[in-house]
Amino acid sequence: MAKNSLGREIPALWRGRALDPYIDPWSRKPEVLRATRPLVRRHPSDSKLLPSLRAALEKCELRNGMNISTHHHLRNGDLLLNLLVKEMDAMGLMDMGIASSSVHDVHAEIIPYIRKGVITRIETGVNGLIAQMVSKGELKCDIIVRSHGGRARSLVTGEVEVDAAFIAAPCCDVTGNMNGVHGPSACGSLGYAYTDARYAKKVVAVTDNLVRYPAAPISISQSDVDYVVQIESLGDPKKIVSTTTRVTRDPAGLLIAKYAAEVIHASGLLKDGFSFQTGAGGTSLAVADNVRRLMAENGVKGSFGCGGITGYFVDMLEEGYFETLFDVQCFDNKAVDSMRRNPCHREISADLYASPFNRGCVANMLDCVILGATEVDVDFNVNVNTESSGYLLHNTGGHCDVAAGAKLAIVVAPSMRGRLPVVRDAVTTVTTPGETVDVIVTERGICVSDKHPDLVAELRRRNLPVKDIRQFHEEITKVTGKPRPVEFEDEIVALVEYRDGSIIDVIRKVHE
Amino acid sequence: MAKNSLGREIPALWRGRALDPYIDPWSRKPEVLRATRPLVRRHPSDSKLLPSLRAALEKCELRNGMNISTHHHLRNGDLLLNLLVKEMDAMGLMDMGIASSSVHDVHAEIIPYIRKGVITRIETGVNGLIAQMVSKGELKCDIIVRSHGGRARSLVTGEVEVDAAFIAAPCCDVTGNMNGVHGPSACGSLGYAYTDARYAKKVVAVTDNLVRYPAAPISISQSDVDYVVQIESLGDPKKIVSTTTRVTRDPAGLLIAKYAAEVIHASGLLKDGFSFQTGAGGTSLAVADNVRRLMAENGVKGSFGCGGITGYFVDMLEEGYFETLFDVQCFDNKAVDSMRRNPCHREISADLYASPFNRGCVANMLDCVILGATEVDVDFNVNVNTESSGYLLHNTGGHCDVAAGAKLAIVVAPSMRGRLPVVRDAVTTVTTPGETVDVIVTERGICVSDKHPDLVAELRRRNLPVKDIRQFHEEITKVTGKPRPVEFEDEIVALVEYRDGSIIDVIRKVHE
Repeated sequence: MAKNSLGREIPALWRGRALDPYIDPWSRKPEVLRATRPLVRRHPSDSKLLPSLRAALEKCELRNGMNISTHHHLRNGDLLLNLLVKEMDAMGLMDMGIASSSVHDVHAEIIPYIRKGVITRIETGVNGLIAQMVSKGELKCDIIVRSHGGRARSLVTGEVEVDAAFIAAPCCDVTGNMNGVHGPSACGSLGYAYTDARYAKKVVAVTDNLVRYPAAPISISQSDVDYVVQIESLGDPKKIVSTTTRVTRDPAGLLIAKYAAEVIHASGLLKDGFSFQTGAGGTSLAVADNVRRLMAENGVKGSFGCGGITGYFVDMLEEGYFETLFDVQCFDNKAVDSMRRNPCHREISADLYASPFNRGCVANMLDCVILGATEVDVDFNVNVNTESSGYLLHNTGGHCDVAAGAKLAIVVAPSMRGRLPVVRDAVTTVTTPGETVDVIVTERGICVSDKHPDLVAELRRRNLPVKDIRQFHEEITKVTGKPRPVEFEDEIVALVEYRDGSIIDVIRKVHE
Repeated sequence: MAKNSLGREIPALWRGRALDPYIDPWSRKPEVLRATRPLVRRHPSDSKLLPSLRAALEKCELRNGMNISTHHHLRNGDLLLNLLVKEMDAMGLMDMGIASSSVHDVHAEIIPYIRKGVITRIETGVNGLIAQMVSKGELKCDIIVRSHGGRARSLVTGEVEVDAAFIAAPCCDVTGNMNGVHGPSACGSLGYAYTDARYAKKVVAVTDNLVRYPAAPISISQSDVDYVVQIESLGDPKKIVSTTTRVTRDPAGLLIAKYAAEVIHASGLLKDGFSFQTGAGGTSLAVADNVRRLMAENGVKGSFGCGGITGYFVDMLEEGYFETLFDVQCFDNKAVDSMRRNPCHREISADLYASPFNRGCVANMLDCVILGATEVDVDFNVNVNTESSGYLLHNTGGHCDVAAGAKLAIVVAPSMRGRLPVVRDAVTTVTTPGETVDVIVTERGICVSDKHPDLVAELRRRNLPVKDIRQFHEEITKVTGKPRPVEFEDEIVALVEYRDGSIIDVIRKVHE
């Protein structure tokens, strides 16, 4: 057991894997070759169509101990992963790994198969019940939490081998050309699945909308797809995309948003060519709303918006605030519709979006990103994985990727939630290292990293409530009281991998 | 020295390379892993911009014996390859290989550097003077002729290692995002360069049109580009694309075209979903003209046109004869313009277009292709590389790829050229094996492969001049006289690789 550079205890070995402790956001540059896979030769008369998921699982020659993957653009509407796990159980497969891009509440259906030993590990972050049960020790399943860029990296380096990728394809032809913008299960971008299509040993397109050759547009190409399976439905469209994402009406959220936009303005980044990312949360969208106003007032023409895309960003594109949207995931119907018809709304892979180990990702070109947090600490470290209960409940998303890439990474959060302060002595879990976080904005104060004395001066000049983070921590804990520390047992139930593959933190079993 | 299945003498070894003789179009399926390359890590503040080609060549750490590549979408207007060879000479580099997608007449400027030993091999087919001089023994430079699909395959399998790819980018940003549709050197599709971008050890974007980030659209992405160099001009726009490609007015050509279209109609393939490829030659376009007429008369809605794209195919797309164009190379300005504005005009990589060793190429989905020939023989073998002089003069293009992929491969050619018959006992050089050729159409007769007795019957029913190829050969040679055989020396100056990597023929030095 050694400490990484953030003081987190990292074992040398966990469940057979040697761990490399996190050092800093930049220096890890392993001398590694891009992962490979066997080439395939396919003749003009060969058909890829298979009658069922079972047939596809068999054709992929899955054996005990292998990994499968799916993508999570269908979110809580996804039916595919559950179907696959049930089929693998029916085939008698055991000790399988799920190397999907994310796992959601809807996948709680696989819990019985985890208990049974069909699934023994999840090579991705998990949202919701499965993660919580693993945290409690109620479910035995190794979890390795990875960011979107880190997941792409792990496939490209070969650290994670996907033996068979099952790609939910809302629109697909018989050769496997596919897109996400047409059909009853349209989800928009297929950005996370690109890496699977290029690196999985076998690639299966699963569709509920088989169209005449050639599918148009083509997001993932026939030259990467081994088999095509038609099933009745990929998912519940109502749960795949929300009909709308909305600006918050909460007064505290609105104040946070106003402050955050002022910080961006004060930073000097808000000029022609400005690039920007926010999440889909109400406060994030309120920041976008304020940024839009400032852009209009100052006649600023932005360059690109990126990340998971909301209707709000679509409006900004259409109104000329951005020239381009780079979309790795559509958050609502308006985004799906925009990607379908607007060539300036561009689909990108998770690798291009955020991987640290390619020749340059889009995240590196970002001026400013607005990020959330369940907790931050006095060293600017951010937690989005666990909550103050200690339970693992959320996947990382692109959090640590864009924090590292953007010139200005701003975390927005209410100063307290219930009786719990958002600022801690130390976060329960480090998702994103403080070295890559620039500003924390709450409704009661703005904390700026020591890296930015000029920004502090400018914010003070604007009479904004800049506060030293340690003093701010004391101020808030005076209101909330010092939170009772969560008690953990020694057992490590999950790893949190930093985007570069080093271990930034571990998640231990909560002592109930 | 052993004979391949077509009776061509293939040495076991040539210039240090062990040769695998051609057997048939389908059976070669080497167990091979996709080629790899070292991963790179690039931080947000790292710039890719370099001040000159020389700086880029140095950054790529080129050493004697390595390979560089360029793409040939700029055709006879390309300036880049010549500039690179001169710089390599200035750096004192020797024994370098050119692994470009094609070499053209404009590259005759590099002849002095071949003489000097700076360039000792060309890993691609060569059009024009360099090839002719090599055939005559006047220039010493190993040439390996590859089809477009075969070249993509050779990079993907790692048989050819490109140490540095220099991609002429008509529109490019500072991170290397690029497209071919904007700028003074616009050439349309960058299809051949995709494979280089994915497989070359180092990738350099060279542009005369550096645009604000992000370039739009993105054909080749920043995540694959190491360096960006701005130069004054990539080429001579007038020689990059022709202003127009035209239907022939030659009566023989028009008759050939009429027959070829009748063959397609008689084959039964001309129905909804029809897919089609022709070259840019006047007779090929005349076939397209007749096919269009037949489609209109019969109310046929086609699926896709593919290959190198001409304005003629753009018209067919716009008039609704096709839903899609798959474009690996634009042949004229109208095609470039169409790709710029019409999302149904889709850019594809050479790998997706025609490689035999991926999970299914577009060529495999073709119904019918119209191909040219310098010679055909009584076994339906086709030559497009050498002429009856014996000189290597032409690159293969996609000839053997689409012949193998398409359901119906039709060769169109005049029955004689000057005093030389087009049909021979044996072609001087086999480019495309007769096993993949279905019909040969001349103005004096139509020869159909034995594979298609039904087609023969239908053509006879339509009173078309179907002839047995051996009888037709005799008939023509009665007119032309038996051509004097070209005399060759033993020395092999070039290999003709079949798309699968086996050696279908060799090219020997012509005895003058």
